[in-house]
Amino acid sequence: MAERLSVEARKQALKSLPGWAEMSGREAIGRTFTFKDFNEAFGFMTRAALVAEKNDHHPEWRNVYKTVEVVLATHDAGGVTALDIELAEAMDAIASQIGVA
Amino acid sequence: MAERLSVEARKQALKSLPGWAEMSGREAIGRTFTFKDFNEAFGFMTRAALVAEKNDHHPEWRNVYKTVEVVLATHDAGGVTALDIELAEAMDAIASQIGVA
Repeated sequence: MAERLSVEARKQALKSLPGWAEMSGREAIGRTFTFKDFNEAFGFMTRAALVAEKNDHHPEWRNVYKTVEVVLATHDAGGVTALDIELAEAMDAIASQIGVA
Repeated sequence: MAERLSVEARKQALKSLPGWAEMSGREAIGRTFTFKDFNEAFGFMTRAALVAEKNDHHPEWRNVYKTVEVVLATHDAGGVTALDIELAEAMDAIASQIGVA
């Protein structure tokens, strides 16, 4: 099982993920992606879903038209693990290819 | 523009959509779909996204692993319209094909 990151390790990892922030009230990280339209937003979700399924580690996410709010945590570990950092990095890479900084 | 349904018309429409209910605190209808796993849940979302995009009428939805919480409203109309009822029916049909009653 992936190990829960310490507060320090989590803060360190977030330095390389500028769009992401700690969620208030729970041990998780989150980012809101804003795309041009629904086509781009759902295209992002589809590519991210394939990564999530391959890694067997899934996001919590909410989509309203062109926005996708993502929350990542590892339930089994009770916090944020390397699996979440990897998924965050993969999502950033996909969004960047679609044209979101 | 699609016309906002009256309270009576909305209640009448919901009789044919047994899984759906009025949202509290806002004029919208909602349903939570529970699938077998993420594959089924995201498969449902993908098919529903194609319908939404074709109709140019999109859901608000949240996915956590095998569950998909959907809220439907027509923002321009300030409430529920025939577009929402059509999308709800389409989502029910897709979920039913996947095996969700």
